[in-house]
Amino acid sequence: MGEILSLERFRLDKYSDFPKWYHEILKHAKIVDTRYPVKGMNVWMPYGLKALRMIQKIMINLLEETGHEEAYFPTMIPESVFSKEKDFLQGFGGETFVVEGTMTKKFNEKLFVRPTSETVMYYMWNIWIKGRKDLPLKMYQIVNVFRYETKMTHPILRVREIMSFIEAHTAHATSEEAEKQINEALNIYKKFFDSLLLPYFIVKTPPWDTFAGAEYNYDFITAMPDGKGLELGSVINLGQKFARAFDIKFMDSDGKTKYVYQTCYGVSERTLGAVIAIHGDKKGLFLPPIIAPIQVVIVPIARRDEQDIIEYARGISEKLSEAGIRTYLDDDPEHTPGWKYYFWEMKGVPTRIEIGRRELNNNTVTIARRDGAKKITVNINELIDKLRIIWTEINDYLRNKAIEHLKKMTIITDKPEEIGKGVKGLIITPWDGTKECAEELEEITGKQVLGEIIESPIKLPSLQGKTICNRKPDRYVLIGTTY
Amino acid sequence: MGEILSLERFRLDKYSDFPKWYHEILKHAKIVDTRYPVKGMNVWMPYGLKALRMIQKIMINLLEETGHEEAYFPTMIPESVFSKEKDFLQGFGGETFVVEGTMTKKFNEKLFVRPTSETVMYYMWNIWIKGRKDLPLKMYQIVNVFRYETKMTHPILRVREIMSFIEAHTAHATSEEAEKQINEALNIYKKFFDSLLLPYFIVKTPPWDTFAGAEYNYDFITAMPDGKGLELGSVINLGQKFARAFDIKFMDSDGKTKYVYQTCYGVSERTLGAVIAIHGDKKGLFLPPIIAPIQVVIVPIARRDEQDIIEYARGISEKLSEAGIRTYLDDDPEHTPGWKYYFWEMKGVPTRIEIGRRELNNNTVTIARRDGAKKITVNINELIDKLRIIWTEINDYLRNKAIEHLKKMTIITDKPEEIGKGVKGLIITPWDGTKECAEELEEITGKQVLGEIIESPIKLPSLQGKTICNRKPDRYVLIGTTY
Repeated sequence: MGEILSLERFRLDKYSDFPKWYHEILKHAKIVDTRYPVKGMNVWMPYGLKALRMIQKIMINLLEETGHEEAYFPTMIPESVFSKEKDFLQGFGGETFVVEGTMTKKFNEKLFVRPTSETVMYYMWNIWIKGRKDLPLKMYQIVNVFRYETKMTHPILRVREIMSFIEAHTAHATSEEAEKQINEALNIYKKFFDSLLLPYFIVKTPPWDTFAGAEYNYDFITAMPDGKGLELGSVINLGQKFARAFDIKFMDSDGKTKYVYQTCYGVSERTLGAVIAIHGDKKGLFLPPIIAPIQVVIVPIARRDEQDIIEYARGISEKLSEAGIRTYLDDDPEHTPGWKYYFWEMKGVPTRIEIGRRELNNNTVTIARRDGAKKITVNINELIDKLRIIWTEINDYLRNKAIEHLKKMTIITDKPEEIGKGVKGLIITPWDGTKECAEELEEITGKQVLGEIIESPIKLPSLQGKTICNRKPDRYVLIGTTY
Repeated sequence: MGEILSLERFRLDKYSDFPKWYHEILKHAKIVDTRYPVKGMNVWMPYGLKALRMIQKIMINLLEETGHEEAYFPTMIPESVFSKEKDFLQGFGGETFVVEGTMTKKFNEKLFVRPTSETVMYYMWNIWIKGRKDLPLKMYQIVNVFRYETKMTHPILRVREIMSFIEAHTAHATSEEAEKQINEALNIYKKFFDSLLLPYFIVKTPPWDTFAGAEYNYDFITAMPDGKGLELGSVINLGQKFARAFDIKFMDSDGKTKYVYQTCYGVSERTLGAVIAIHGDKKGLFLPPIIAPIQVVIVPIARRDEQDIIEYARGISEKLSEAGIRTYLDDDPEHTPGWKYYFWEMKGVPTRIEIGRRELNNNTVTIARRDGAKKITVNINELIDKLRIIWTEINDYLRNKAIEHLKKMTIITDKPEEIGKGVKGLIITPWDGTKECAEELEEITGKQVLGEIIESPIKLPSLQGKTICNRKPDRYVLIGTTY
């Protein structure tokens, strides 16, 4: 952990040059290494991966406690299986990697490397699902998926190997049960992003932009510091399209054979990209305590001959570790305490404990906070309780800051024609739901209609006046460019 | 969990027809589904995957506590990177899946789908490793790897998508440090297989059969119920071959630039295959408590109107779950207690709690054991302590049974010429280490020389007499056919 760097103090403003800030923090904090020679494929460094594993755990718990079971389906999909649902093939065919053989052998049938797992899963569900007792079926898997992205790639945010795709799939006897499942999925995702203190809009994607093979889908969208939208996750009602393509039927209690109704939903490592971009600041990363690989860094302030201070610090480190707190004692003699303060702030550690002679003599420690609140000195008996309180306060701080960030990145207007093309940020404006009006909005803003707003963390004024198309609005629309 | 099956009692002898036993138990216990239409690629079912996740956790802990850090390297490797080490290319080229493009686009350079990650990792290590402070470097990753196996595939044991390859890689400043690392790795693997109660031979692979690109390697080999050997894991000393191919050098403290020394070692889901095959019996699976997804199944013996018994059982289930014991209450009214006994025995659950009127009245439970030891009735206050004792006894039982199994599957002889070709089992016989003698042994046994025995769980007699080649033996050799 204690990598030795000749580090200059990290000082960059994410709002003035986000691409630079983002690239530099990924490098300095050792999240991913982008020097691997395949475009859109990055190496995950231990520190970044630890944070990602924490995020995965939150989602796994949410899925398990709502009755989803983990399974694993193969990565490679025969062309005949991949091609069964025509909209899906149309939507994903061009960006799917294809294996035709090895160096020395050509296969009889091409294998498609999963861009997402509908086809491989539903091939099996055709075999598994027989009767009503097999429903609902709720499964998830955590897998790498591959997409030959034609849009510009960005580390973690838009990549050609998504290494942490958590995809859940469900099958139900009735359309109503599938709708209920969509609600459960929305609630799972709300809890997930809320626990990471990320604010989001939930939009319903317009029909002309719906997931390939789906009836409709919801997207969770947040704003990045450059004003671009980031799709954090999708919740998709597949209706019976795949059921028909894969012939997934069950014998209902009325003795009739019926197609199932299906849903699916997925999130990826993008979530961590959003955490980095939205919570980070001029000093570098700022990781919420729930996912910080190191929740507390302990920095002894001691000369080389003051081993008693180091020992005292070690004792506290052990005590915190035993209490399940992720703690790191930085007793590296090669760096000054000041250097360490900057370094671990840059790494996003939410709380730092400073221990010198005075702390040792008084059985206390001094706690410094990544949010910049005043340092406090507490007795070691109170330490664990105090840390938990501080983390709650830090959560509040991050949540509020993130909402402020989102407000800053969002323009709410009923006169979109006045803001002009290419303005930074997401735009919210009244809409009547028509494609005609959406196209006009895209034309005047130079951005894309992302969908009808179903839920907003920013209070929207009541709808009035007329839309750009001169019609009466009945909803708000989210407009933006996305990663 | 409580899948409803019209299940006949599982009754198969793994020694009389292992392929049948193995295939049937994978199906009945829902470990993997082999009906996916790509040869050698199977679907992991939730129950099998849960057991596998437990096994992964054991290895992750062992690697983390010895200072290995988890990273993640991309799945796809450009041809130019994959081809750098010539022995490796020679060894793996023919069985590596190749991506040449998508449905609509051909790439400029072919991408190789990792069969193992030396090349992708060491490309980066060339960038990362600069000085002595960067060493030792100890990393691991848990990934899916792909091998176009030409040998016959078997579910979990020999597959074309290995979905749980835990590969560790290290780099060191000196050859001595690399040797030390080999020892650490051997110890990690011993602890790992010991904790799963699997007996193994450690062999040093003969030079003509060493891992492509390595100096030498050790294999952990066990015997399956059909007498075939199963390689459970490899520990490989790579020397400086890859360091030279990838130009991985560091500036030593003497100011000179030197190539690093490297090691790597890996295990896969095969470990679970061995657990299933070696511990299983006529009744089905028998999972060691440490990895059993369900450690205790509770079966209430109650009529539908005896809800008080169900409630009592539920209370006990909750109490066990709170204590961190993986518990399942099977209160499904559709099956008889007898059916449930067979079913959960087949699923390998190590301990069963039976609760009827008598238990409720006396504040007791009755514990039945998968090893067939006598049922006992204990007060609920003693239950958790008693379970832990029983699991220790079950571990002893499984360990001893596995050693007996290995003895049964192994022929120790100094007259290999007398046993003839194609006899079932592994053969251990004196050897002088020469290729000439190895070839003669392979000729007369019809099996393969797997390597010099470094460690054996079966006591071997002291070496004497002459080898088949009429030379003085100085070691034992393990011979067999393998999966």
